Amino acid sequence: MRHFVVVGQKATASADFLLDDLPGSSGRLDVLLRCVRAAMLVSHGVRRDAVVYLVLGGSSMAPRTVKIAGTDAAFLRPDERSLGILIKKVLAISGPPDGQFAVVRPGISLAQRGLDAVLEDLGDARLFVLDERAPDLRGEAALGGGDSAFFVGDHLGFDDTTRSVLSSLGARPIGLGPVSLHAEDAITLVSNELDRREGAGRAGP
Amino acid sequence: MRHFVVVGQKATASADFLLDDLPGSSGRLDVLLRCVRAAMLVSHGVRRDAVVYLVLGGSSMAPRTVKIAGTDAAFLRPDERSLGILIKKVLAISGPPDGQFAVVRPGISLAQRGLDAVLEDLGDARLFVLDERAPDLRGEAALGGGDSAFFVGDHLGFDDTTRSVLSSLGARPIGLGPVSLHAEDAITLVSNELDRREGAGRAGP
Repeated sequence: MRHFVVVGQKATASADFLLDDLPGSSGRLDVLLRCVRAAMLVSHGVRRDAVVYLVLGGSSMAPRTVKIAGTDAAFLRPDERSLGILIKKVLAISGPPDGQFAVVRPGISLAQRGLDAVLEDLGDARLFVLDERAPDLRGEAALGGGDSAFFVGDHLGFDDTTRSVLSSLGARPIGLGPVSLHAEDAITLVSNELDRREGAGRAGP
Repeated sequence: MRHFVVVGQKATASADFLLDDLPGSSGRLDVLLRCVRAAMLVSHGVRRDAVVYLVLGGSSMAPRTVKIAGTDAAFLRPDERSLGILIKKVLAISGPPDGQFAVVRPGISLAQRGLDAVLEDLGDARLFVLDERAPDLRGEAALGGGDSAFFVGDHLGFDDTTRSVLSSLGARPIGLGPVSLHAEDAITLVSNELDRREGAGRAGP
């Protein structure tokens, strides 16, 4: 499985945002919604081997984390508004108070915690962190096959705490070329590199 | 310059679509809007060396083509709704009756024609066509530097006429790996390959 962990420093953990003004009302949750499409959807199908975590650090409801698993996800649509409606419904649900992930819709879970819940959930997946100044992923031998997790910052990048936690866990920094890209493009590039190494994808309708 | 030509078989050429239901009301113009983001925007900046053409084949107003040029584009925002608002305003304008591109907003032009207007505008740019079954772009020697144009189908792919016109012009088919991807991901992958070959990007704020 391939896991993408998108850390939204100010992305709202509350359902109280406007679909008509996502960038202005949600702490740039729109960035994270686009990451969901990039990680989960291919032409006419869902990547059944992909999981996305959205770590939401904004609003008084934070931290909360939404997990979307391709194995079970249904009704995922590629457009930003549809994904916004979906996440709004999810965030309106109260997650379990124990901080564990609880399934709230097909393929979608919610936890009332942030990065630590994700790290617990990932088990012993190999960790990678997207970093503009890091060595190119095309030269990274450890990529492909098995369980991997890729940490992606939002438009603000990573906060110092996240960066140091990932570093202490031995997450390998990987880069994507000479231009600083949007988070969703980073996910597209990592997914394609994995596709090439793992052969034909396992996307299903 | 790098040019991306996105051919929307049924994407509406009319301003008469709903921002609240882009996929359902616009012939999947949402696909093309996401292509604009992928081609034009990077982290905190616009790709000044990129041009996007949206060839709109849907509605009784078709064919029309919107051209967005990074050299002059202003106020481009990454979220789908903002891009939808922008294109809606552009499509509400009457283009010149002679079928030439006319600038209607900073960096944005409109023509009352389809693919033939684009081909005329491209001059002697090298032509490439994204094709799932074609040889990998990573092995394509002719890529990078100079004027290139990449033709990308929407969720319906290319119609037969477009395919045969591009073939007769010698457009080189290039592929992107083993998985069939969304048009916007194809653009992200081509852009990244060009970035790598051309060195540090020329994105500006």
